[in-house]
Amino acid sequence: MSYCLAIQTRHGLVFASDSRTNAGLDQANVARKLFTFVKPGERAFVLVTSGGLSLSQSVLAVLTGEYHVGKGLASAETMYDAARCVGDAVRAVAARDREHLEKDKVAFNVNFIIGGQIAGQAHELYLIYPQGNPLRATPESPFLQIGESKYGRPILDRAVRYDSTSLEQATKLALISLDSTMRSNLTVGPPVDLVVYHAGELRVRQQMRFGADDPQLVTIRTQWEQELRAAAQRLPEVKFPEG
Amino acid sequence: MSYCLAIQTRHGLVFASDSRTNAGLDQANVARKLFTFVKPGERAFVLVTSGGLSLSQSVLAVLTGEYHVGKGLASAETMYDAARCVGDAVRAVAARDREHLEKDKVAFNVNFIIGGQIAGQAHELYLIYPQGNPLRATPESPFLQIGESKYGRPILDRAVRYDSTSLEQATKLALISLDSTMRSNLTVGPPVDLVVYHAGELRVRQQMRFGADDPQLVTIRTQWEQELRAAAQRLPEVKFPEG
Repeated sequence: MSYCLAIQTRHGLVFASDSRTNAGLDQANVARKLFTFVKPGERAFVLVTSGGLSLSQSVLAVLTGEYHVGKGLASAETMYDAARCVGDAVRAVAARDREHLEKDKVAFNVNFIIGGQIAGQAHELYLIYPQGNPLRATPESPFLQIGESKYGRPILDRAVRYDSTSLEQATKLALISLDSTMRSNLTVGPPVDLVVYHAGELRVRQQMRFGADDPQLVTIRTQWEQELRAAAQRLPEVKFPEG
Repeated sequence: MSYCLAIQTRHGLVFASDSRTNAGLDQANVARKLFTFVKPGERAFVLVTSGGLSLSQSVLAVLTGEYHVGKGLASAETMYDAARCVGDAVRAVAARDREHLEKDKVAFNVNFIIGGQIAGQAHELYLIYPQGNPLRATPESPFLQIGESKYGRPILDRAVRYDSTSLEQATKLALISLDSTMRSNLTVGPPVDLVVYHAGELRVRQQMRFGADDPQLVTIRTQWEQELRAAAQRLPEVKFPEG
């Protein structure tokens, strides 16, 4: 499995991904799952991906090939079109591989999130299903997750708000969500890739990779655990009926 | 789905369960999933269950029938034997129903957690798989979950310690874990049943049901959300390399 998420607020976008890949319990490896396509001042896209690594690599190969000849993500006129480019690439790979996978009962499973901005338009965020169709994040549902998403969801449900959450806060929440998932599930592992995109910038200025022992990640992990315990201590004690 | 959990600390046991049952998305109903078998001063058992309601009802019918004639849980000599009684009841129901379910590709899926104490022995906690075999909680793995367990796991991983967590704290953590799951997953719903068993008491003194709008549950939910947001605010801001 993998775990990737992206948060959209009125101020921009935050993307985070783990880097663990595995075939069953064997062959655990590190693979980057976060990619950027940027023409500074004109367009900036960030993609994260989960599912079969062979499949996501093929989709990236299609997208990169198009991009270098000025097609696909290089010429998409809207964020919706960009999401459709990713979906078309997924379908192109499905046309080539799906039947062969299914002969051996391997599911065609690859998921993408793409977010970003094109000059003169709003920043947007989409999830692309393995069937190639897009789903857009909205102010009411301001985050998207792919892969092993359940462990890291409650903190997002409770704390992410499109209007009021700052990008700095969203960044911390994304790292908490990912770190909690790594703690509870062995198939999600470091390093963690992170991009914070500020609306209107049309370039990727804040990008970073955190190893397992990165001091900032260790501080967040340690302090968060202490904060949770202290917060639970402060809750009122449960009172039972007299019995 | 359902979500039930139990925590074991050196001071005793905490059990919590939701009450939602459903067949697909239809037929959402309320059903109790927490049961007690107590002979005060001699033995006290608490069970929670997830999986097919028809199956768990049948297992309970077997256990209750045995109990009323002094067999099964009424005469088990150790907690391990008690866990085996539950497993035997699961296997008796499997022998009757499994083949018929599988004809229509319905899985035989029912899970139990049983915890409690027999006079003169330590309190213990077991999970019973659908195959009837038991798994015991240990000081290193001091909680057990059945059903929709992923949403509510990170808070338990981060905060429950066999040696140092008080029963009052474990009670709050169990409610947080359940409430977070209800918030993030529609198939887990109120009311919430809760039992706190204090080691050595050999009776169930603290038991309670929380409706969706129970004032104590609402306070915990509201305050917890505020605490999480404030705790994230207090984490240091992520610093990116100069780029």
